[in-house]
Amino acid sequence: MTTVNRRIVLAARPHGEPNASHFRLEEGRMPVPKAGEVLLANRYLSLDPYMRGRMSAAKSYAEPVAIGDTMVGATVADIVASNHADYRVGETVLGFGGWQDFALSDGQGLRRLDPSAAPVTTALGVLGMPGMTAYTGLLNIGQPKAGETVVVAAAAGPVGSLVGQIAKRRGARAVGIAGGPEKCAYLRETLGFDAALDHRAEDFPDALAAACSDGIDVYFENVGGAVFDAVLPLLNAFARIPVCGLVSGYNATELPPGPDRMPTLMRAILTKRLHVQGFIVWDYAAQEADFLTEVGGWLREGAIVHREDIVEGLENAPDAFAGLLKGRNFGKLIVRIA
Amino acid sequence: MTTVNRRIVLAARPHGEPNASHFRLEEGRMPVPKAGEVLLANRYLSLDPYMRGRMSAAKSYAEPVAIGDTMVGATVADIVASNHADYRVGETVLGFGGWQDFALSDGQGLRRLDPSAAPVTTALGVLGMPGMTAYTGLLNIGQPKAGETVVVAAAAGPVGSLVGQIAKRRGARAVGIAGGPEKCAYLRETLGFDAALDHRAEDFPDALAAACSDGIDVYFENVGGAVFDAVLPLLNAFARIPVCGLVSGYNATELPPGPDRMPTLMRAILTKRLHVQGFIVWDYAAQEADFLTEVGGWLREGAIVHREDIVEGLENAPDAFAGLLKGRNFGKLIVRIA
Repeated sequence: MTTVNRRIVLAARPHGEPNASHFRLEEGRMPVPKAGEVLLANRYLSLDPYMRGRMSAAKSYAEPVAIGDTMVGATVADIVASNHADYRVGETVLGFGGWQDFALSDGQGLRRLDPSAAPVTTALGVLGMPGMTAYTGLLNIGQPKAGETVVVAAAAGPVGSLVGQIAKRRGARAVGIAGGPEKCAYLRETLGFDAALDHRAEDFPDALAAACSDGIDVYFENVGGAVFDAVLPLLNAFARIPVCGLVSGYNATELPPGPDRMPTLMRAILTKRLHVQGFIVWDYAAQEADFLTEVGGWLREGAIVHREDIVEGLENAPDAFAGLLKGRNFGKLIVRIA
Repeated sequence: MTTVNRRIVLAARPHGEPNASHFRLEEGRMPVPKAGEVLLANRYLSLDPYMRGRMSAAKSYAEPVAIGDTMVGATVADIVASNHADYRVGETVLGFGGWQDFALSDGQGLRRLDPSAAPVTTALGVLGMPGMTAYTGLLNIGQPKAGETVVVAAAAGPVGSLVGQIAKRRGARAVGIAGGPEKCAYLRETLGFDAALDHRAEDFPDALAAACSDGIDVYFENVGGAVFDAVLPLLNAFARIPVCGLVSGYNATELPPGPDRMPTLMRAILTKRLHVQGFIVWDYAAQEADFLTEVGGWLREGAIVHREDIVEGLENAPDAFAGLLKGRNFGKLIVRIA
């Protein structure tokens, strides 16, 4: 077994889009577990939009990654050494191993995976944080009812694709927004969305209005920007807007030019009695067992579909991550490390 | 008894601040009740900020008043003729009689008032729509907990003053914002707010921050504008913002200059996991009995304080209303008609 640990560290904080210059691949020694620790060999690394926030110094709900520190991220890993009573060598776990070959863990936050129950990569997507984001945000805040119209952007991604499929299971109409005709066809033909719209099309706002002729009752917000602008006038009274991300703005270096539309948004909230609520998945940590049971069941039955976009090699993580923020991936973006 | 009905009609739609030119006092014949109707002699007319919306053609949650139609509004009225089985001449009711001496009603929406239980004008303020707005918005959406900080603007008005007093009864800190030192002294000394701040003071944002050293957990939004700008950076994670009004913008003729801060607000909602929700009081109509029992009880016990600002004469309603939008009133603004 190799004793070298490759890791990708934050080399510089991006101003705007991240690129290769903001990351650095370093090699060091494989760490050695102390008493109570396990050594994880990362097999798959999850790439997710929230990581852009960790690259910035700005305060968010989590601490930024320090310059020179290993980029953080969820991983599927094999336990290759254990000084922990609860874990044995050879077990596969979901952990937070970061952008590197090996990581130590004291066991906190590890979730044991059963490769016979579902492919282990699903723990990074449909049965992991993205899936649980869709499940908890849609059901707790969105609360779709039969006959209502649910709109979600980045709908071919791991969060949006599950939002639409759960909305359908609740009897709602699902309208998905994605970038390009290929993703839109996938939404309609494979995932069963009632309508799919390309946000890059010139007539996108009109097309969205036509697809939502009864207005929008739930808008699951994960992108912001021009999509939100098109959604806002279509929202019905008492619409619910779970806000879990604003990817379109993550690389923004300044606010858009005026006028200042903050009063426009507040007026819409007032007159339409909107319910707008931000959340992160761990606000609903207590619902993880329900999520795994319910969504895991649908997955085993073949009642829901998911898609993964797997990139080979840790060294390609920075480029894949930059593409993620531009919608280049098609499905849950995962890096195969080993 | 007079047979002339004076009424104030909407003469023109204001662009900006309403003034005398937008209203017209007309005289007509006192209407005659048909079968199933009562004739109301309006004694007190409630003036409320929502009426500014009714003067505009823009779609809101209610239909605009048509040019030439009588301005709408809640009134305390005596029944002076009745062809309705449930109402007798001499009874006093809360109705929606409008800006006029007399009105007809088919009985729908009337609330019989007991003058021995509480002064009848309270049905327009602390025991009426404004009080219930405070009660339902704060308890359903704001959900203040002991030790939390609750901030409300227009705090010397009928909604804000009750928001602060209910927050105190729930064990929260109440921080009020009002215009001028006299109102601020009233908030601290008479209503028992923990702090009161003059939004006209030059150091208002700093003073608010100092008064909310543990941040803001509930912001009851009824004014918007510069107050909201000062509140936004102070909001704690999981803060709740019931939105029942945006008075500071009701006379605005255009949006403020840029940059566009809509992304700023959405980002705050996301990273602080804010819960922002618009409402109007009738969304909670089912809670009216609870409201009357609970707040009525506090009022009888002397446990809460309220204040009325009574203007004499229907003809003075337009000027009083224009003043309301600028915060000229001190307490619930009511016009004594007869």
